[in-house]
Amino acid sequence: MTLEQALAKMNELQAAQQAYNHAMGVLSLDGDTAAPSASAKGRAETMGYLSGVTYRLLVNDEVKEALETILSERSRVTPMQARQAELLKEDYDDSVRIPMDEYIAFSTLVTQSNAVWHEAKLKSDYAAFAPYLEKIIDFNRRFAGYKDATKPAYDVLLDGFEKGTTTEALDPFFSLLREKLTPVILEVASRPEPDTSFFQQRFPLHDQRLFSDKLMALMGLPRDRCGIAETEHPFTTNFNKWDVRITTHYAENDVADSMYSVIHEGGHALYELGTADEIQFTNLASGATMGLHESQSRFYENLIGRSLPFCRALLPLMQECFPQQMQGVTAEQLYAAVNKARPSLIRTQADELTYGMHIAIRYEMEKLMISGDAKVSELPAIWNRMYKDYLGVTVPSDREGILQDVHWAGGQLGYFPSYALGSAYGVQMLSAMEKEFDPWADVEKGDLSRVTAWLGEKIHRYGKLLTPSALLQNAIGQPFDPNFYVEYLQKKFSALYRL
Amino acid sequence: MTLEQALAKMNELQAAQQAYNHAMGVLSLDGDTAAPSASAKGRAETMGYLSGVTYRLLVNDEVKEALETILSERSRVTPMQARQAELLKEDYDDSVRIPMDEYIAFSTLVTQSNAVWHEAKLKSDYAAFAPYLEKIIDFNRRFAGYKDATKPAYDVLLDGFEKGTTTEALDPFFSLLREKLTPVILEVASRPEPDTSFFQQRFPLHDQRLFSDKLMALMGLPRDRCGIAETEHPFTTNFNKWDVRITTHYAENDVADSMYSVIHEGGHALYELGTADEIQFTNLASGATMGLHESQSRFYENLIGRSLPFCRALLPLMQECFPQQMQGVTAEQLYAAVNKARPSLIRTQADELTYGMHIAIRYEMEKLMISGDAKVSELPAIWNRMYKDYLGVTVPSDREGILQDVHWAGGQLGYFPSYALGSAYGVQMLSAMEKEFDPWADVEKGDLSRVTAWLGEKIHRYGKLLTPSALLQNAIGQPFDPNFYVEYLQKKFSALYRL
Repeated sequence: MTLEQALAKMNELQAAQQAYNHAMGVLSLDGDTAAPSASAKGRAETMGYLSGVTYRLLVNDEVKEALETILSERSRVTPMQARQAELLKEDYDDSVRIPMDEYIAFSTLVTQSNAVWHEAKLKSDYAAFAPYLEKIIDFNRRFAGYKDATKPAYDVLLDGFEKGTTTEALDPFFSLLREKLTPVILEVASRPEPDTSFFQQRFPLHDQRLFSDKLMALMGLPRDRCGIAETEHPFTTNFNKWDVRITTHYAENDVADSMYSVIHEGGHALYELGTADEIQFTNLASGATMGLHESQSRFYENLIGRSLPFCRALLPLMQECFPQQMQGVTAEQLYAAVNKARPSLIRTQADELTYGMHIAIRYEMEKLMISGDAKVSELPAIWNRMYKDYLGVTVPSDREGILQDVHWAGGQLGYFPSYALGSAYGVQMLSAMEKEFDPWADVEKGDLSRVTAWLGEKIHRYGKLLTPSALLQNAIGQPFDPNFYVEYLQKKFSALYRL
Repeated sequence: MTLEQALAKMNELQAAQQAYNHAMGVLSLDGDTAAPSASAKGRAETMGYLSGVTYRLLVNDEVKEALETILSERSRVTPMQARQAELLKEDYDDSVRIPMDEYIAFSTLVTQSNAVWHEAKLKSDYAAFAPYLEKIIDFNRRFAGYKDATKPAYDVLLDGFEKGTTTEALDPFFSLLREKLTPVILEVASRPEPDTSFFQQRFPLHDQRLFSDKLMALMGLPRDRCGIAETEHPFTTNFNKWDVRITTHYAENDVADSMYSVIHEGGHALYELGTADEIQFTNLASGATMGLHESQSRFYENLIGRSLPFCRALLPLMQECFPQQMQGVTAEQLYAAVNKARPSLIRTQADELTYGMHIAIRYEMEKLMISGDAKVSELPAIWNRMYKDYLGVTVPSDREGILQDVHWAGGQLGYFPSYALGSAYGVQMLSAMEKEFDPWADVEKGDLSRVTAWLGEKIHRYGKLLTPSALLQNAIGQPFDPNFYVEYLQKKFSALYRL
C-alpha cells in the first residue's frame, strides 16, 4: 500500500465513522429525549447492528496496513494526518485486543446491568445489583490486562479516560484535597446556612424554559449551532461544531437545579462549538479527554457561574423571568445561596467545596474493587464508612449510597477521577487567564466573550490534535499543581463563611 | 444459491435495511424537530453517506440472485416471504435502473432543498427555492424514465406512490370532483359563515400541549408507542409498531389548527401502530400506499373528527383545557365551526369540501412540471391563476401560494393525488363499516376502539402484505367508486348550510 492509498483509506474510514457516529448519536439522543418508552427494544436492535458495522469498519487488515503505513512515514504526512492515524491506531489496538465474544458479552452485560441497577436503586436493593457489579469488575480487570498486562489494571483503566493518569499521581492529589479541605468543610458546616428559600418556590416549567434561552444567550451559546432538550440526567452530545446539543432537567420547586445544569452543559458545549473548522468531520473534532472536558464545564459552572460578578449579571435575567419569586433578592444573597456548602450524600448535588471528597471516595472504592482487596458484598459497608470518615455523614440507604451513580452499572471504572482533575485544571487555567486580563469586569456585565475566546485559543480549537498533556500545558503554562485548586476553595469559602 | 441461502440472505438484507431506515428516519426527524439550524450541512453529509450504503446493500448480484431464487420457487415459501421478495425485487428494479451517483446526488439535493425551502417560505422568496425545484423536477423526470421509459413520466411517478394510478384514471376523477363540487362550493360560499370566533382567541402553547395529550388519549393512541413533537409542517413517521411519532404545529391564535393536525396524524399513526407483530422488522411493516394512508388519516380527521358525535365527545375536553375560551360553546356550534367551508389559500387548512380542489390544482401543476410545458419560473403565476379559476381566491404571496407545501422541496412529485384518493377511499370504507355496525354511539361517548378495531382488521394489520387493490377491496367489498365521496360531501354540506 502506498502512502497515498493509505491516506485515502484513512479519510474514507473517517468519513464512514463520522456518519455512523452521527447516526448512533442521534438515535441515542432521541432515545433519551423524545422516543416513546416501548421503543427501546427496536433501538437496541438498530444500535447493535450499527455497532457491528462500525467494529468491522475499523478492525480489518486494510485499515491496519493503512495506519501502519502512515505512522511509519510520519515525515511525509501533516501533523494532523499523523495525529489522526495515531488515535485511530489506539482505537484499533484497543478493539483488536479484546476478543469479539468477550466484547459482545460485556455489551450485553452492561445493557442488563443498567436495567437491573435502575430497579435496584429504586428499591435500594444492592444485593440484586451485586452479581452484575462483580462481573463488570471482572471484565474491566481482564480488559485492562488485554490492553497492557505490564501495568497495574487500575492505571490502565484510568489511562482510558484520562491519558497518562496513574494512581501514583492521583494518590497524593486526593490526599492533598482531603488534608487541606477537610478542616474547611468542617468549619463551614459549623456556620449558619445561607438563605436559599427563594430557590424553593414554584418555578413553572415554561418560565424555566424561557430562562434557559436567556441563560444560553448570556453564555454566548449560538442557538443556530446548539440545541437544548430535556432528559432525566443532563448531558451534552456533539456531532460536529455546527451541531451540539445540551440537555437539562427542570425541577419545578428548585430553579437552581436546571440553571446550573445549563451552565455546566453549556461549558461542555462551548468546548465542542469552539473546535476548529479544519478538524471537522475527522476523529480530531471533539474534546480531548474527560478531564479536560470537565475542566471546561466546571469552569463555567463554578469558577464563573458561582462567582459574585456572574451573580450580578444573572440576577436581572432571573428577575425578568421570575419577577415574583426573585423579588427583593440581592446579588450578594444570590451569591451566598448558590454557594451553600454542606457535607451531603449525593455527588451530583454536592457543592463546589465538598465535591472533591465524593470523588476521593469513589477513587478509593475503585482501587479496592480492581485490586480485589474488598469483596463485592463488602462494598456498601466500606462506602458508608468512607462517607462517615470523609464527610461526616451517615448514609441511610444504598439508594443514597453506593447505588446512586450510573457509571459502574454502565461498565465504567476509572472515570470518576476525571471530575476532580477537571475541577483542579480549571482553577489553574483561571489563574493563567487572570495573568493576561481581568475577566471579572466583563463577567459582571454578562459578557463572557473574552473568557470563551481565551479558552478557545488555548484549548477548544485544538480538539484532539494536541496530546492532553500538551493541551493542559498550553493553557496553564506551567506544571499542573493541585494547590491552585485547594487554595482557591480555601479562600473562596473562608470569605463566604467568614472563617 | 439454494432456497435456504436465498431466504437467509433476504432476512439479512431486511435486518440491515431496518437498521439504516431507523437511523436515517431518526436523523431526519431530529432535523425537523430539534436540531439547530446550522446542522443541516453535517446531516446532509451523513444522510448522503448512509444512502450510499443502503443503495449498495440492495443493489448487488447476491441480492438479485436471492430474490430471483425465492420468486422462482414461490410454492416452497410462505406468502409472507413471497411478498417480501416481491417488494424487494420492485425496489431492486427501481434502484438498479438509477445510476448510483444520481441516487446519491438526489438524496443530498433533497436534504439541502428542504433547508432552503424552509428559509424561502419564511421570506416568501420563490427565487431562492426555484433552482432546487428545477433540479428536483429534472431528477424526477429522469428517474421516471429509468423506471419505465414506455410510460408517460408522470404516470410512473404516480405509480410510485399509489400503485396502478394513472392520469387516465385521475383525469376523470378530478373532473368529477370539480364538476359536482363546484356548485356546492359556490352555493356554500354565498351563505353566512358559521361563528368560529371562539377559535380565534389566545390559546397558550402550554395549554395546547396538554390538550394534545388528551386528544391523543381520546383517539386511543398508546403513548408508550407513540410520541409527539413540534414541526412547521405536521407529519407522521414510524420505525416499527413500538415507535411511531406524530408532529404538530401550534398556532397561539387558533386552537383548531393543531387539533386537526393531531387527529389527522393520529390517524396515520393508528395505521402504523396497528400493523401485525409478525411483520415487524420486515419490509412489510408499514402502511401499504400513500392513498391508503391518507384514507386513514382523513377518516379520523374528517369522517370522525368533523362529525357531530365526535364534537360532542371533544367539547368537554376542550372546555377542560380552555375553560375561558370555550365557555358557553355548544357541540352544535363546535360542529358548525369545524365545518366552516370557504374557498381558501392553504391546503392544510382547507375545509373538507374545498380540499379536493387544492389537490386538483397540484395535480394539474405536477403534470405541467413533468411534461415541461411550464418553466419553473412561470409556476407561481400558474399557481395563482389556478387558485383564481378553481377557488376564486387571490394569492397574495408565494409563501401562501406555491411555497406552502413541503412535498416538492422533499423531492416528491406525484404524491398529492393520494390525498384526494384517500379521502374518497375513506368515505367508501365508512359506508362499508356502517353496514356492519353503527359507530356513532361509540364516537359520541369518545370511544373509538370499535372503529379502530374494524379498520385494524380490514387494513392496518396487513401492512404491505396484501396488494393495495386487494386491501382496498378487503375494506370496501366492491369496486372503488368516487361517487360515494362526492355524495357524502353534497349531503353533509347541504345539511350544514341548509342548501
